[in-house]
Amino acid sequence: MFTEKEKVLRQSKIRERLVSCKTDACLLSTSVNILYANGTIFNGYQYIPVDGETLLFVKRPAGMKGENIFYINKPEQIPAILRENGIKFPGRLMLEGGEIGYDQWIRIQACFPDTKLYNGTPDFRYVRSVKTNYEIQLIKKSAESHAIVHKRIPGLFRPGMTDIEFSIEIERQMRLEGNKGLLRTFGEIEAFMGSVLTGDNAAAPSPYDFALGGAGDPSNPVGANGSVLREGCSVMVDMCGNFTGYLDDITRTFSIGKLTEKAYNAHQVAIEIENRLQSEMKEGAKCADMWNIAEAIASKAGLSDCFMGTKQQAKFVGHGLGLVINEPPVLAGRSRETLERNMVIAVEPKFVIEGVGAVGLEDTYIVGENGSEKISDVEPEIIDLLEYRNYSSK
Amino acid sequence: MFTEKEKVLRQSKIRERLVSCKTDACLLSTSVNILYANGTIFNGYQYIPVDGETLLFVKRPAGMKGENIFYINKPEQIPAILRENGIKFPGRLMLEGGEIGYDQWIRIQACFPDTKLYNGTPDFRYVRSVKTNYEIQLIKKSAESHAIVHKRIPGLFRPGMTDIEFSIEIERQMRLEGNKGLLRTFGEIEAFMGSVLTGDNAAAPSPYDFALGGAGDPSNPVGANGSVLREGCSVMVDMCGNFTGYLDDITRTFSIGKLTEKAYNAHQVAIEIENRLQSEMKEGAKCADMWNIAEAIASKAGLSDCFMGTKQQAKFVGHGLGLVINEPPVLAGRSRETLERNMVIAVEPKFVIEGVGAVGLEDTYIVGENGSEKISDVEPEIIDLLEYRNYSSK
Repeated sequence: MFTEKEKVLRQSKIRERLVSCKTDACLLSTSVNILYANGTIFNGYQYIPVDGETLLFVKRPAGMKGENIFYINKPEQIPAILRENGIKFPGRLMLEGGEIGYDQWIRIQACFPDTKLYNGTPDFRYVRSVKTNYEIQLIKKSAESHAIVHKRIPGLFRPGMTDIEFSIEIERQMRLEGNKGLLRTFGEIEAFMGSVLTGDNAAAPSPYDFALGGAGDPSNPVGANGSVLREGCSVMVDMCGNFTGYLDDITRTFSIGKLTEKAYNAHQVAIEIENRLQSEMKEGAKCADMWNIAEAIASKAGLSDCFMGTKQQAKFVGHGLGLVINEPPVLAGRSRETLERNMVIAVEPKFVIEGVGAVGLEDTYIVGENGSEKISDVEPEIIDLLEYRNYSSK
Repeated sequence: MFTEKEKVLRQSKIRERLVSCKTDACLLSTSVNILYANGTIFNGYQYIPVDGETLLFVKRPAGMKGENIFYINKPEQIPAILRENGIKFPGRLMLEGGEIGYDQWIRIQACFPDTKLYNGTPDFRYVRSVKTNYEIQLIKKSAESHAIVHKRIPGLFRPGMTDIEFSIEIERQMRLEGNKGLLRTFGEIEAFMGSVLTGDNAAAPSPYDFALGGAGDPSNPVGANGSVLREGCSVMVDMCGNFTGYLDDITRTFSIGKLTEKAYNAHQVAIEIENRLQSEMKEGAKCADMWNIAEAIASKAGLSDCFMGTKQQAKFVGHGLGLVINEPPVLAGRSRETLERNMVIAVEPKFVIEGVGAVGLEDTYIVGENGSEKISDVEPEIIDLLEYRNYSSK
C-alpha cells in the first residue's frame, strides 16, 4: 500500500534534488510525476517547496479529501492562493520543461514574473530512477504476474496464426492476469501493449527508439505487421508488464519448428551477455561499460552486424523502467550515467537473423551493491511452439 | 490509400493556415502531425514552408526513400542544411508549442535566433478538425468495423463477470476485427482502449476530462474498477475504434436484467438529444448552441442533476475526433467554435442513475450542409444481457 510514510520518502527525495539544483520548489503537472509524488493522479499542479508543506492545486477529480488541497480552474489562481496562505514565492522554481508544452511554461512564468524557472525533467527522471523499497515490491509483483503469463504463451499458438493474432491472445492473458494495459512512455515513443516480431519483420526499422523495430502499421510503425508465423521462423514476444502501475519488461524467443544454427548460437550469445551484465551491473558501474561489454561479446562471436538489429541497430542494450517504460539510465556507449543501488534495469541483448527473425531475450534487474537481482523467472531458452503443441496434444 | 494527391491536399491546408497566421513555415515534430502531413511517421522534423518544397529532417527510421529527405542526429543541423540548399530562413516559424516540451522550443529558437516562433498547436488541431474525403473514408471504415464488434458484445457476457473481464473479451474482439489498440489522446488524458462502466462506479469522478469517469485504478483512474456485473445494473461500453489509424467513437448501454424506470427514461432522453443534435449539427451551427440544446432537453426531462455525471459533471456533450480521440471542436457551453462541413463529431449524451449506473449512448457524425451523417450503425436501445443469454441458449 502507498502509505503516508512512502509519500514523505518520495517527496524528501524530490526535495533533496531541489536543493542540489539550488531551486526553492517545484510545480508538477504531469500525471507520472503526480502519481509518483502523491500516490494518486489528479489534474492540476502539485507544489513541493524545499521548506514548507506540499500543496495540491486540483482541477479534477471533484471531492478530493486531504490537507492543503485547493480547487482551481486555471494556474493563474495559484499566486493568490500562495499569498493568502502567507507562502513566499519561490525564487527558483522547477517545472517539467521536457514534458509540458511551451505554452504551459509561459503561463506559469506569467504567474510568477519574478521567479526564475528551471527545467527539471531530467532531475525528476533521475529521482524516479532510484526506486524505493515499495516501488521495488510493485515491480517484482509485476514481473511475477508477467512470468505466469509467459508460461502460458506456448499453449496459445495455433499453426497458421499471424503475429497479430498471436499477440491478441497474449494480450488477453496479460489482461486476465491483471495487466492494466496502459503502457506509459517518455518522449516520442508510442506503443500498444508490446511487440511480437516474426521473420524478416524483425529487421524493419522503426521511427521509435526501441531495441528492435518491426514495420507495424503506418499509423503506429512498430511491432507485428500481420506476418504469418511460418515454420523455420522465430517469434519474439516483448510485452510490457504493467500489473501494478509499475512496469517490468520480459522478452522471450519462441520458434516455429527448428531455426538455423546461427540463430541458436546468437541466442546463446544473448544469454551470455545477459548473465555477464547481471554480475557487472552494480553500484558504481558505468552504464557505457555495460554497453561496451555487451558489444564486445557480440563482436567476439562475430555477430556485430546483427546485434540489436541489422538495417537499423539500436545503440543500447538496456534501459531503466518504472512508471514509464523508458526511464534512465540507458546502457548505451554514449551514456555518462553510473548505476546506483535500487535502479531497475531491463537488459535486452537481441540479434536479428536474416530469414529467421529476432533471437535473444530480456529480463528486469534490480541493481545491488555487488551485482544485480533478476526478478523475472522465465526459462531463457527458445521454446519450439510446434514441438510444444505436438507434445501437449499427446 | 494515402496518395501523393492526398499529401498535397493536406499540406495545402496547412500552408493556407500558415498564411492566415502570417507565418512563413512550420516545423512539425509530433507523430500525429507528421502522420497527418506525411502519411507515415518518422522521428525528426517536417519543414513545410508557405513558398517552396516540404523538407524532411529524419532521425529514424533508417532507409527512408523520397525527395528532400535529410538525415540528421539533432535539430541543430537543420540551419546548415537550409543554407546549403539555398533556402531562406523563415521570419516567422510555427511550432507545436502546446505539445513539444519547453526544452525543444528553446533548442529550435537557438537554431533560428532571428526567427519569431509561433505556437501553432491550436492551428494544427483546427486544420485537422476539417477532414478530407479520404480521412472520412477511413473514419467510416473504423465505424463499420466497430459496429461489427458491437453486435458481438451481448454474446461475450457471462453472469458473475467483472467489468474488467467483460472489457477484456470486448478488447479481444476489437483487436481480432482489426483494431490497432493504440488510443491517441491530446493533453493530459491517458486511457487504454476505452471504458466499461457498471453500477455506481459510473459516478466516480476522474481526473481526466472524459464524458464520464469511473474509478479505474490509482495508476490510471478512469473506467472499469473490478466491479461485478450485478443484476439491475447497467453496463456502458465506450471503446474507441482505431481500425484505420483514424478513430471513431461508439458507446452503447447494456443491462443485466431490468433497470429502473428512471434509467430507461433517461436513456430515451439521451436518444432524443442525439437525434436532435444530428439535425442541428450543420455547417455554421455554433458548438455552444449544441450544448445548450442538449442541456435544455435534459433539463426539461428533469434530469439536469445526472446529465453527464453526478458527483462530477462533464460540461460538453460531444467532441471532434480523428487521429486523436479529443480533437476540436467541443460541443460545450463555453465553446466559441462553429461547425464546418466535414468536421467529425462524437455525440455522447449520457446520464448517471444512482444504484444503476450510466445510460445513454454515443455515435460518430460527419457534419454536412443541412445536418450530419451518422456513420455508426448500431441499435440505440439498451440490450438486456441476461435476456439475450437466455434467448440465445434456447
